[in-house]
Amino acid sequence: MPYELYYWPSIQGRGEFVRLALEEAGAEYIDVARDSKKGMAAMQSFMEKGERPPFAPPFLKDGDFVIGQTAAILFYLGGRHDLAPKEEAGRLWTHQIQLTIADCVLEAHDTHHPIASGLYYEDQKDEAARRTQDFRDNRVPKYLEWCETILARNPAGQKHLVGNRITYADLSLFQVCAGLTYAFPKLMKREWHKYPSVAALQEAVAKRARIKAYLASPRRIPFNESGIFRKYPELDA
Amino acid sequence: MPYELYYWPSIQGRGEFVRLALEEAGAEYIDVARDSKKGMAAMQSFMEKGERPPFAPPFLKDGDFVIGQTAAILFYLGGRHDLAPKEEAGRLWTHQIQLTIADCVLEAHDTHHPIASGLYYEDQKDEAARRTQDFRDNRVPKYLEWCETILARNPAGQKHLVGNRITYADLSLFQVCAGLTYAFPKLMKREWHKYPSVAALQEAVAKRARIKAYLASPRRIPFNESGIFRKYPELDA
Repeated sequence: MPYELYYWPSIQGRGEFVRLALEEAGAEYIDVARDSKKGMAAMQSFMEKGERPPFAPPFLKDGDFVIGQTAAILFYLGGRHDLAPKEEAGRLWTHQIQLTIADCVLEAHDTHHPIASGLYYEDQKDEAARRTQDFRDNRVPKYLEWCETILARNPAGQKHLVGNRITYADLSLFQVCAGLTYAFPKLMKREWHKYPSVAALQEAVAKRARIKAYLASPRRIPFNESGIFRKYPELDA
Repeated sequence: MPYELYYWPSIQGRGEFVRLALEEAGAEYIDVARDSKKGMAAMQSFMEKGERPPFAPPFLKDGDFVIGQTAAILFYLGGRHDLAPKEEAGRLWTHQIQLTIADCVLEAHDTHHPIASGLYYEDQKDEAARRTQDFRDNRVPKYLEWCETILARNPAGQKHLVGNRITYADLSLFQVCAGLTYAFPKLMKREWHKYPSVAALQEAVAKRARIKAYLASPRRIPFNESGIFRKYPELDA
């Protein structure tokens, strides 16, 4: 039975981290809200009526089992599709990296929504400009530096964040870098060369057969200004 | 060998979620940065030199194993101290709740720091007032409502978030409610009665023998205005 992924149909958003893992795994899945007219209603119904209702999308259905929170979904998929080490320390380290990447993703979102997700960007532009300056000057360098350090210290080599094989953490780092490059081209043009191992990983992930095919397919929703990573030129510098 | 908890010594912060789990478990632990003069240096050293450096405190050392990210630490402790179900679905559901609570905790922090953690509150007071209004009006009710719903739908009864026994998710919900009540007494006085099962859980956790002893001990750092939950009367309403 294919997995069912429940997420907003018109953005990459947090669902994209799950999509990338499913694609790399070659897993069969239905992107419910995109593939079916009743998808949005089904998504709403789980959140309203489920015995264990997810707080928000994305969530994944595997048979009878429904699981929410991106990092928890990836933890689950990682164990099933060999996208994380089997031994506990490695499995938790991969999860820890994912949770840190999730923190960065939320901060990227909050650059354009520092006051309230329920308000339009236009209603919080001044605050967004201030928050984004800090994100560009302090937060992006801190996160990328940490990833570069982890790659440098990986005893199995600098090609992967964990061990000598692909994990969902590598896929997620790819996605964050793709998003930052989309949203902040000037910043990334200036900063990118400081993180050569991150850049190499990013390139290597994009070339993986299944990821490459996915990125070229209509299944990959283009970045856009409703998602987490938004290209607002006034926020880049 | 006792666990070693590494966290800032003068605030509850995210470390408190780990402390509560360790206390409820009756586990031996050293609160390194509080209990030793060299603790802060040791904490810094792990982050700067470790092979798997945590991005930020808290992190926990169990023998040779070091693990960061509050939710990952609790996942680890939950399995070892019977503070989460053993079966996979229950274990991941508990984790999912914890990750959602962690989102709420970050939002509580961002009420007073909507622009940058590196700036003082005084430098972002106007933005804080706007962000906090949304937090009070929309986010706190949404999170508490979700917890109330989960309790209502728990087939094992409304006393616990998961199953019929205490989990780290119950402890974390206790802590969030304590924090919200400290920071936003007016809001909580007005809202609290809408969430009777959450309120009952909160009270029940506070009365558990080990938690009660902990809360009355000097090990429990009082809430203060350097932590996540801050009592700024101008932000309450």
